Amino acid sequence: MKTVDVCLSPDLIHLYDVSDKVVVVVDILRATSCMTAGLANGVKSITPYQNLEQCEFMKYKGYLIAGERDGQKVDGFDLGNSPFDYLDESVRGKKVAVTTTNGTVAIEKSKRAIEVIIGSFLNISAVAAHVKKQRQNVLILCAGWKGKINLEDSLFTGALVDKLIDDFAFESDAPLLAQACYLQMKDDMLHRVQNSSHAKRLNRLNVQKDIEYCLKLDEFDIVPRLVGEELVV
Amino acid sequence: MKTVDVCLSPDLIHLYDVSDKVVVVVDILRATSCMTAGLANGVKSITPYQNLEQCEFMKYKGYLIAGERDGQKVDGFDLGNSPFDYLDESVRGKKVAVTTTNGTVAIEKSKRAIEVIIGSFLNISAVAAHVKKQRQNVLILCAGWKGKINLEDSLFTGALVDKLIDDFAFESDAPLLAQACYLQMKDDMLHRVQNSSHAKRLNRLNVQKDIEYCLKLDEFDIVPRLVGEELVV
Repeated sequence: MKTVDVCLSPDLIHLYDVSDKVVVVVDILRATSCMTAGLANGVKSITPYQNLEQCEFMKYKGYLIAGERDGQKVDGFDLGNSPFDYLDESVRGKKVAVTTTNGTVAIEKSKRAIEVIIGSFLNISAVAAHVKKQRQNVLILCAGWKGKINLEDSLFTGALVDKLIDDFAFESDAPLLAQACYLQMKDDMLHRVQNSSHAKRLNRLNVQKDIEYCLKLDEFDIVPRLVGEELVV
Repeated sequence: MKTVDVCLSPDLIHLYDVSDKVVVVVDILRATSCMTAGLANGVKSITPYQNLEQCEFMKYKGYLIAGERDGQKVDGFDLGNSPFDYLDESVRGKKVAVTTTNGTVAIEKSKRAIEVIIGSFLNISAVAAHVKKQRQNVLILCAGWKGKINLEDSLFTGALVDKLIDDFAFESDAPLLAQACYLQMKDDMLHRVQNSSHAKRLNRLNVQKDIEYCLKLDEFDIVPRLVGEELVV
């Protein structure tokens, strides 16, 4: 039986061997929710950059540039980190270069994996179906907040683990922890996430609508994956 | 209001400033359970060593030496890592030098804290009462398993957070995660821990009795704390 494991923070990724695993990268608020929404809405590709200047440079190559630091859109960038930016008609058919606080770091750390895919509540059932079909070991990697564990990524992880429980064995205790947290909070998820530390941080930035959107289930039946340096469907 | 925060793995401790906090070190299976049991049973002091040879050397200074690597007693040592070793009459009045896989590492990493105390289910109410009286910020630091998060330390953390919820604010999302996991599993804790990865590892070593003992609540009304290099009551 293939295994599912969970890495709740990118700062723990050194403990995992990703080379024999499909890695599901998760940054619910808001990088991977944006990526899912954008690619479902017809964005041609999304290329993640850790470095802000590198990302900005892609403007001159015809990309739309998307950037966020500490929850706020970077000055002069085309898109921020709101899923609604990615749902606009104007992004269709375009290539996007993106840099975010936590999400792109997690993708960068997964590059040695068999495959890197993008998970969010918006495509959770599609992700579950995809990894079941793949029949490879799976690692769910949470982007967290500057190395710390966050609630929304943990809840998504627990929800995904709960969908995989009959088809995969657990590799360590982190899947049990995430699943228990999800089962405890699932009927009250929006309220719980609104009271989490990251949401409170974002609430200061008036992104209540974003948070509600990022917790919607199965808006899209797509699985973004990394091909070379680009995320595509 | 003072805060409570949770570090679920010693490999994340670089993200926390311990210098303004009381740190509760947790290694339920079995280091901090042993320390609590031993000091309650009349052990004079327990000195943790990261290094096996340093620990062994203390034999010549009249200490009992206690050592475990990967769940098994080190050859030639007086005590292993079973709480029952520490409940024996023969240890009373003695000084113990101890080295374990995970627990002593966590203690070493906390040394800059205001105070380092030892938490286990065996003294959970005493620990809760102590930190409430202290009125300092609290960090619960889980020893984990070789850097990975484990279920039993997370459950203890959740149970302790649940006792502190009215008196402390949450500093990040990790307390929420641990508390939710505890609330989800609390009526079935022994069974859940028996099926966790660490317990399965230990089960191969026939320590079922130890696991049951380490999950007992409030056997002792003591709070071991680090004074200099020694844990004392």
